[in-house]
Amino acid sequence: MHSSRFAPMPDGGRSAGDVPAIQDTYPEDVAHCYGCGRLNDVGHQIKTYPAGDETITEFTPESYHMAIPGFAYGGLVASIIDCHSTGSAAIFQMQHAGKTVGSELSPRFVTAHLEVEYLLPTPLSEFQLVGRLIEIKGRKVVVETELSVDGTVTATGSAVLVEIPEHLFDPKV
Amino acid sequence: MHSSRFAPMPDGGRSAGDVPAIQDTYPEDVAHCYGCGRLNDVGHQIKTYPAGDETITEFTPESYHMAIPGFAYGGLVASIIDCHSTGSAAIFQMQHAGKTVGSELSPRFVTAHLEVEYLLPTPLSEFQLVGRLIEIKGRKVVVETELSVDGTVTATGSAVLVEIPEHLFDPKV
Repeated sequence: MHSSRFAPMPDGGRSAGDVPAIQDTYPEDVAHCYGCGRLNDVGHQIKTYPAGDETITEFTPESYHMAIPGFAYGGLVASIIDCHSTGSAAIFQMQHAGKTVGSELSPRFVTAHLEVEYLLPTPLSEFQLVGRLIEIKGRKVVVETELSVDGTVTATGSAVLVEIPEHLFDPKV
Repeated sequence: MHSSRFAPMPDGGRSAGDVPAIQDTYPEDVAHCYGCGRLNDVGHQIKTYPAGDETITEFTPESYHMAIPGFAYGGLVASIIDCHSTGSAAIFQMQHAGKTVGSELSPRFVTAHLEVEYLLPTPLSEFQLVGRLIEIKGRKVVVETELSVDGTVTATGSAVLVEIPEHLFDPKV
């Protein structure tokens, strides 16, 4: 059921138009996260896009990210859901304010609470994540996520994200 | 309040006697986890020990494991709590059965449900984790964890772990 969301557009993009990944619009001072920072050379560098009223992330684990042979370790599943959720919160908050992703620097969220339900072992193959907005209230956003491999949901996540105040972006201030 | 648990013993060990880390007693077929497997050369290789009626793990993050500068990314905090919880479940189940860690190969648990509460940003410094048994019922164990840095609890975790049936250890069987 998720395949259409993840099918490349005719122009090679992942979603309608030329919307960048939200992580590519994070302010430089907060773009070093191991999970999602574009400026972290050794990190996962996940990319999260708006897709209608949802958000999507694709991530391909390495063979050494195993739990038991052939399956991803639970910490990776939690990590990718976590960073997908912070990116999703930024997308949902921008949309809530009537802004388009890429029109300005993104707000930056951190996680206050994360829950992961491991439904099935997650194969060491491409993860496809879909995020949905559950609640938005001021600086707090609640996001739910489904993580699938080859169309089968193997884990779900629920996260409470809080926007970092801008004055904390730059430790020199 | 946790310092005494983590103080090295006079003989250089981490806990009373010569008890090995539970991960060093995992069967070889299930000792490759990126978070805790002793046979995963590029993984975190965490080590969890019994300490009275609790369990302890110490882990030092790398500088590139950042979220925002100076602080650990949430996925790492979740990962280390997750693998500490699977190790703790094995320790608690052995103790519940009247067995000593190291007396035989360990049972091996996977995570069914994980919750992490991020109370404060976690500094990129040594994590000290303490696990406590909440419930044990057949193959299911519930563990709660406190993660501290320099004596301050920055995150707590609650995990439901399920023992892997032995016939799943070896995919060739």
